[in-house]
Amino acid sequence: MARCCRRLTADIAGEFLASVDTFLFDCDGVLWNHQDATPGAVETLDKLRNLNKKVFFVTNNSTKSRADYVKKCLQLGFHAEEDEIICTAFVAAQYLKSILPANSKVYVMGMPGMLQELDKAGIRHIGSGPDVIHGTITEWVQTELDPEVNCVLLGFDENISYLKVMKAASYARRKGAFFVATNEDNELPMDGPIVIPGTGVVVAAVKTAAARDPIVVGKPHHPMFDMIAKSFNVEPDRTVMVGDRLNTDIMWANNCGLHSIMVLTGIATLEEAQHLMTSNSIEHQKQIPEFYLDKIGDLEEFLN
Amino acid sequence: MARCCRRLTADIAGEFLASVDTFLFDCDGVLWNHQDATPGAVETLDKLRNLNKKVFFVTNNSTKSRADYVKKCLQLGFHAEEDEIICTAFVAAQYLKSILPANSKVYVMGMPGMLQELDKAGIRHIGSGPDVIHGTITEWVQTELDPEVNCVLLGFDENISYLKVMKAASYARRKGAFFVATNEDNELPMDGPIVIPGTGVVVAAVKTAAARDPIVVGKPHHPMFDMIAKSFNVEPDRTVMVGDRLNTDIMWANNCGLHSIMVLTGIATLEEAQHLMTSNSIEHQKQIPEFYLDKIGDLEEFLN
Repeated sequence: MARCCRRLTADIAGEFLASVDTFLFDCDGVLWNHQDATPGAVETLDKLRNLNKKVFFVTNNSTKSRADYVKKCLQLGFHAEEDEIICTAFVAAQYLKSILPANSKVYVMGMPGMLQELDKAGIRHIGSGPDVIHGTITEWVQTELDPEVNCVLLGFDENISYLKVMKAASYARRKGAFFVATNEDNELPMDGPIVIPGTGVVVAAVKTAAARDPIVVGKPHHPMFDMIAKSFNVEPDRTVMVGDRLNTDIMWANNCGLHSIMVLTGIATLEEAQHLMTSNSIEHQKQIPEFYLDKIGDLEEFLN
Repeated sequence: MARCCRRLTADIAGEFLASVDTFLFDCDGVLWNHQDATPGAVETLDKLRNLNKKVFFVTNNSTKSRADYVKKCLQLGFHAEEDEIICTAFVAAQYLKSILPANSKVYVMGMPGMLQELDKAGIRHIGSGPDVIHGTITEWVQTELDPEVNCVLLGFDENISYLKVMKAASYARRKGAFFVATNEDNELPMDGPIVIPGTGVVVAAVKTAAARDPIVVGKPHHPMFDMIAKSFNVEPDRTVMVGDRLNTDIMWANNCGLHSIMVLTGIATLEEAQHLMTSNSIEHQKQIPEFYLDKIGDLEEFLN
């Protein structure tokens, strides 16, 4: 795809939109900000559906299940079916189901939404909830590990603790252990002076202790799109990803051969995207979007 | 220094040992393993002192103060003065004293030994001890930050939590904030199936959230040797570092222009060191020791 960060304007939009039949939308920063839909987003999605375009909600957030996201969409006025929700809790559970031997057991760092997806996929798991260290190193080395655990799954976990990192790293070091993470976003997008750490913090802590990198299923990595392509018969070159983050959404589109539209209602700015076009780094080049729009609602007028 | 990982043998030891007057010893894995001095270590140090060699105990461990280490040395039979203990808790406190404006306040992730060194250096600090997250993200963003904090110091902290990472990252993002870490060792050396996470886990978590790298004072970085050189009038090319870790001890020696001896009583193996000699990577080349010995006690016979 041509990566020139060009504004999607009326004169080129018609032909471009006719050439794609699947629309993948990042959620926070694109369709909504916190509890408010972005202007025109609901109407744009309705219109795409009327034109028989496929629509998917694609998010790295690992704290919610697909059922949770359907509820959230309906609350904000979006029509959504569970099959259209591609969240990392779901993708990770499906990915594990596809690679793990029968009767595997997963040590998981994650919130209830992720546990629900694991339960639905029939995957046994331990590790959720608070787990705090006591005693001294002499006792720590006596920590009992579950002999059945053959996999570690890392997602967002507000209960991150020294003991949980110790257990996750110890399981991940086991011979033949599977090691998977939902995503590596370093923070959640919030205004103000408080940095809200993202799943990337959990992943950084455990992979440092384990001295081993996990397979990451979420954007910008392949497994999330592989699942969409396989389950819904989606063609990369007839698919467009709409996102607000260059190093996840747009890089994912470029990694997977999708068209891309950046919107300016979330994390990244137009200046950041334009600055990447001056870089020699391949990592930077992969973050340049094909098109941009001020907001997703601007697409609506092109759909008449 | 010639980096050829050559066994230090009787025929070359005499000339080499006469050419150095300062001996820097890593502790765990070199002078002792847990609660036991390695064979001949006590006698070797005594002999070095008799020959008027300067001796220092140089450790990345940030949990103990210099006073704690003097006690531990005496328990294991080593003679030691507080001035000879170069531990990262002390180095970090002295480093902060040298760079911070008067009346600074530090948000610290660390154990009591580090707090003692900060107190001794007259540096105000907050943040130690357990600090657990409650509520939801709506409340998290309201977390009150101390307006006086202008520095973050990261060391080993068994109380690592989501809230502590959030606070450390938020302070580190402040305009003009100082951001310092003791070391980045990923684990503590222990046998068995349990991985005991090191300070590197704390550093990885906070630097990911803060999207910023700290200055690291411990091995393999310069500040620790700069302090020794300045305080004790030590010449790099008349100094030898004796260590068991290639990516801290030996790399530090090579980064700072010191002679180096690897001992095989700790983390690294001879095969690992020899394997590095086949690598094209500069990072790997920097980890090749000048000499090796099975154990530090083998030095004793060369000192007659």
